[in-house]
Amino acid sequence: MTERLQVDLGERSYDILIGESLLTSTDLDPFVKGRQVAIISNETVAPLYLSGLREHLAATGRQVDSIVLPDGESHKTLATYSHVIDELMRLRHNRSTTLIALGGGVVGDITGFVAATYQRGVPFIQIPTTLLAQVDSSVGGKTGVNHPQGKNMIGAFYQPALVLADTQVLRTLPKREFLAGVAEVIKYGVIREPGFFAWLEASLPALLDLEPSALAHAIRESCACKAEVVAADERESGLRAILNFGHTFGHAIEALTQYRMFLHGEAVAIGMVMAADLSWRLGLLSQAEAQRIKALIAATDGLPVCPPKLDATAMLEAMGMDKKVTDGRLRLVLARGIGQALVSDQVDQALLLQTLGAYEKLCE
Amino acid sequence: MTERLQVDLGERSYDILIGESLLTSTDLDPFVKGRQVAIISNETVAPLYLSGLREHLAATGRQVDSIVLPDGESHKTLATYSHVIDELMRLRHNRSTTLIALGGGVVGDITGFVAATYQRGVPFIQIPTTLLAQVDSSVGGKTGVNHPQGKNMIGAFYQPALVLADTQVLRTLPKREFLAGVAEVIKYGVIREPGFFAWLEASLPALLDLEPSALAHAIRESCACKAEVVAADERESGLRAILNFGHTFGHAIEALTQYRMFLHGEAVAIGMVMAADLSWRLGLLSQAEAQRIKALIAATDGLPVCPPKLDATAMLEAMGMDKKVTDGRLRLVLARGIGQALVSDQVDQALLLQTLGAYEKLCE
Repeated sequence: MTERLQVDLGERSYDILIGESLLTSTDLDPFVKGRQVAIISNETVAPLYLSGLREHLAATGRQVDSIVLPDGESHKTLATYSHVIDELMRLRHNRSTTLIALGGGVVGDITGFVAATYQRGVPFIQIPTTLLAQVDSSVGGKTGVNHPQGKNMIGAFYQPALVLADTQVLRTLPKREFLAGVAEVIKYGVIREPGFFAWLEASLPALLDLEPSALAHAIRESCACKAEVVAADERESGLRAILNFGHTFGHAIEALTQYRMFLHGEAVAIGMVMAADLSWRLGLLSQAEAQRIKALIAATDGLPVCPPKLDATAMLEAMGMDKKVTDGRLRLVLARGIGQALVSDQVDQALLLQTLGAYEKLCE
Repeated sequence: MTERLQVDLGERSYDILIGESLLTSTDLDPFVKGRQVAIISNETVAPLYLSGLREHLAATGRQVDSIVLPDGESHKTLATYSHVIDELMRLRHNRSTTLIALGGGVVGDITGFVAATYQRGVPFIQIPTTLLAQVDSSVGGKTGVNHPQGKNMIGAFYQPALVLADTQVLRTLPKREFLAGVAEVIKYGVIREPGFFAWLEASLPALLDLEPSALAHAIRESCACKAEVVAADERESGLRAILNFGHTFGHAIEALTQYRMFLHGEAVAIGMVMAADLSWRLGLLSQAEAQRIKALIAATDGLPVCPPKLDATAMLEAMGMDKKVTDGRLRLVLARGIGQALVSDQVDQALLLQTLGAYEKLCE
């Protein structure tokens, strides 16, 4: 059973297909319009899934090339971007080519940025192979690479022609990476979908067991939520900021631990617990609601809820350096009850410092 | 007298202001929204106009930085792009910054591509300082850099917030570069505006004397024509191709002479004479009309009309390698009378070879 979801962006609208074993299904074929296709993947994913996809596409009579990148965020650079462009030029891909991103968020972000800028834009298809990429980075059109002085500082908003979320490939994903994706799934429940949050509380065991129908539902609801927010605010001028619930805290934690201690989703998990705490201090969330958020994260039996012991002043500074700052003012995403997020640039710094200092409470 | 022209692209619409001494006028100010502004210029233009612009903007209380690039097409590379990004990061420009391109087409193309991709997009203003940039590259949203294997292979479609075409700055432009711009001005008359073509035949002396009102009219009509075509076809799927009248021949001539013999506008001038000849052979243009096109170009007393002696087969190949090829088919822009261009992918190769071999006729 394949589920189909449309991301409504006018002439840039596209479909997300969710289901088992989509990777080599014929669903893909109509979206590869020209005679050339280039699959961009990484050294971890390629041995598992590249040859099947290559063979499927080659059987349709197309020129199929593949470019395999080293794995990891440290390779999400302008140098890797430039290498992919060089390869496409060397292999003589023209403006009618189609790019396919086969991998996690890093592969998707680089491939999307190449697609946005190769010969001023060619179509691309996302085949995300991590839960995080399926529910987050493959939807919304953010593409790009990191700069030594900051993450995602170079990039473009560019929409894919299609996203294929194959639930089968999650079986080869390491547990820790799977849970990092679950953190973002929980986020959607908190910021916009109280019913989905309740479903997660009830269905978490099925999800952790990788039951196909539970996976498909979680991915579908997450993508639908993100798609709705992105459709309302494609270029992140307002509403879209709510997708960053937990992220301002999370990014600061990642930065202060040199991106070594936590996966992005893990830092976001802690960030959500902190954002819930701050929302409670601001009177937006009851203590019981803040507790439900923390409890659901803890129930994953793997995602952290407890921040590392970091200096509050350093955290403040790391949060202020975040690029989601408009002309010097810190904007924070808060929860008003479970299921409704809001953005505020009026947060009392004293209360923020209380949350940053609430180590004992959050880690009890 | 400042003329104002709107490029109608829905939410991406913007104004072109044309007039004398706009460079340091207050017309600019409302378009610099944030507290930071970075002027990107080159070593030729900066000594002439940078300090005036800097002082004007600094007086408005903003952080004003400037990045001066080496001059020339050979620096339109990913390396230069990367250098500009590095500088913006070093100077801590945030998402609210505004970039200003102060220079010719190369500065505009690089700055536009940086603006399209710095933190996934910041606003930018074009202040083109060559006639070619004023009537061509500053309108239409094409941005990008060259790849060693091809021109403009990396880039994006990205619209400026404003274009300021200051006719005064053309007084410091070398005559040869000025005429290269006139070639593109003539092109607009041929492809879409028979009345403008007739005006050019009558007013060429005034234009070559840099009379402000003649300059403003020529720039206005050229930008209006390009703006109309771009508005109808922002991403170059159809109509926009007519803007390439003379360019497929021109690009091939540039490539086969290693980009050393002709300025781009000069190669386009020859290309237009060749495209007119081919249009005549196809029965689209009368001999007299083809002659009028050649005569107007020749009357500039500086633009070439005569192709260099190049091997016809090499020309064919160079034209076929042009990136305006869709899945292997050569599309050519032709003139049906003066004032109406069309695109055809059905040109009889024998007739094309006749044009390529018509050296004696074209150079008589």
